[in-house]
Amino acid sequence: MTARTQGSVRIVGAGLLGASLGHALTALGVDVILADASRSALSIAVDYGAGRREAEGDTPSIVVVAVPPDAAADVVARELAAWPAATVTDVASVKAGILAELREAGADLARYVGSHPMAGRERGGAVAARADLFLGRPWVLAAPPEAERDRRWAIEHLAVDAGAIPIVMPADEHDAAVALVSHVPQVVASALAGRLGGASPEAVGLAGQGLRDTTRIAASDPALWVQILGANADAVASILRGVRDDLDAAIAALDDPDAPGARRAIAELLARGNAGVATIPGKHGRSERFARLTVLIDDRPGELARLLTEIGELGVNMEDLRLEHSPGAPVGLAEIAVVPEAELPLATALQSRGWRIAGGAE
Amino acid sequence: MTARTQGSVRIVGAGLLGASLGHALTALGVDVILADASRSALSIAVDYGAGRREAEGDTPSIVVVAVPPDAAADVVARELAAWPAATVTDVASVKAGILAELREAGADLARYVGSHPMAGRERGGAVAARADLFLGRPWVLAAPPEAERDRRWAIEHLAVDAGAIPIVMPADEHDAAVALVSHVPQVVASALAGRLGGASPEAVGLAGQGLRDTTRIAASDPALWVQILGANADAVASILRGVRDDLDAAIAALDDPDAPGARRAIAELLARGNAGVATIPGKHGRSERFARLTVLIDDRPGELARLLTEIGELGVNMEDLRLEHSPGAPVGLAEIAVVPEAELPLATALQSRGWRIAGGAE
Repeated sequence: MTARTQGSVRIVGAGLLGASLGHALTALGVDVILADASRSALSIAVDYGAGRREAEGDTPSIVVVAVPPDAAADVVARELAAWPAATVTDVASVKAGILAELREAGADLARYVGSHPMAGRERGGAVAARADLFLGRPWVLAAPPEAERDRRWAIEHLAVDAGAIPIVMPADEHDAAVALVSHVPQVVASALAGRLGGASPEAVGLAGQGLRDTTRIAASDPALWVQILGANADAVASILRGVRDDLDAAIAALDDPDAPGARRAIAELLARGNAGVATIPGKHGRSERFARLTVLIDDRPGELARLLTEIGELGVNMEDLRLEHSPGAPVGLAEIAVVPEAELPLATALQSRGWRIAGGAE
Repeated sequence: MTARTQGSVRIVGAGLLGASLGHALTALGVDVILADASRSALSIAVDYGAGRREAEGDTPSIVVVAVPPDAAADVVARELAAWPAATVTDVASVKAGILAELREAGADLARYVGSHPMAGRERGGAVAARADLFLGRPWVLAAPPEAERDRRWAIEHLAVDAGAIPIVMPADEHDAAVALVSHVPQVVASALAGRLGGASPEAVGLAGQGLRDTTRIAASDPALWVQILGANADAVASILRGVRDDLDAAIAALDDPDAPGARRAIAELLARGNAGVATIPGKHGRSERFARLTVLIDDRPGELARLLTEIGELGVNMEDLRLEHSPGAPVGLAEIAVVPEAELPLATALQSRGWRIAGGAE
């Protein structure tokens, strides 16, 4: 594969995102120049092969600012001034505030294309970096109206070189979208998981997949999320108000469940949830619903592989897979999503091969 | 396997739970008598082999009431009166209200053992019934203090015969526990998913695994959940108030994120979420944390099976597995949870076999 990206790429900030991008571009033969305020972070990234140190006479065609969100606007402004021919981007997860700061500072917005690669890992830093970090992930391009066409293309090519899927979207639209699909779910999951603090082990022992799913992202790093939520405060607060109002209505209805309209209010809340979840695109971007089949598997190595091999032999394409294991149980449950037409034939075929089919979670 | 259950079991209500229990007991050679107010529901369950119709001279040793939650107390009282020697249980998912109604009606509580098998499926009815529905699932036994020891044992034996894991817990403690781990997450997920109603396809197109996980259970049946939430209204409302208060605090902090204490309030909410999610037991009931490794797999049948086969060959026990697929991407991501010691050796071994390791979601 040949890089679409032309010239040298300077990456400021050799953390997880910066170093991962360095690895991806280096693998394509692009000249990557790394810079970081921390000498040791820079050394690690260079030692791991994410790029080289800067040198006299460098003239990057692209600068990628991959510093913490709070520092991004200042560094972008500085880099735009330092490299008068370069296209500059950043990778912060909130975009409108940075753009406003740059505009206020009189930065050359013709050469700025904000971006947001929607990738990450639990662990941070150059040590955790991977060339494949961006593969198959959306990479939002939020250029200001002032940005030149060739500058937009340069950053789009960069995203494609990293293996990501470029998505063009204005900064404020991006921020409203991530508030809805990422930032508000984070706050809500944290508030929900927070209720588990005082619970008895017996109570949480009854937890099923529902609780695990609804609270999984509550394990995220508070320090990073304070920055993200602070940078997108208006959009997040506005959507949170809607959630809060719905909870208020549910509480009022549950305080007097036999009052006229109380059950209807709860039913409507649940029905709106049904409609909302149906809008989330599934695999391949289709929002169709799949049939789910739960197969019992003995809790020993190799059993799941054997099941999936047999599903492959039956010619069935699995759309999704989820494993669950109840405390103390000698069996696990593999929930397999398939197109609805495949459900009954697959269940029958698996049963005839000796697999046990069970019900779903809760 | 021989049944622990002695004598005939009468099951009132031939829906998903009743018919599934009928199948499980019939398979063990237990005499199962089915009854249902709906003649066609009864016919289906009998035709599918979940048990037989009632006959003159039947004297069940156990009666299982598997009717909708709103009707459970009346039917339990009627069955206790009709069969003066039988032990009677029900399978409704909220327990204290039924017990209070029975006590008020002067029912013979020495022979009543309320229970809650935590199993179900998306589809209901006798057609969806499976003998394996309860396998590996918790089955809560919430007997009143008046219940005789042998009656408690009879229902515990019934749960074990169904393949479930019996858990003894007082009714009010059970209701508080399921409010926390099941009912409140349902309301919160519905309120969160409800916000997606007016969103653009571009916005929900940015959805990652976080949104999918936090809203999955919002697809549940409103009619059933109105009954469940109504029957556990106090416990649910009380926990929901805590969630609502946390959201109010987050909204206040985000309305003025630079005010003194605002960022600290958000950080503390997120930290409480960290602590809460850490209390949820994982596989085998241990609450330890696993390392997660994300492997890229080509989107074609058989690739996941090949990966899992190779993981088995490497002697690594997979603790959990999750599949993800971004819209439009030619690859899927398999997130594999392993004990932390296994992460680095597994990643190295898989890479040397040609697998690509990527970062986690978002």
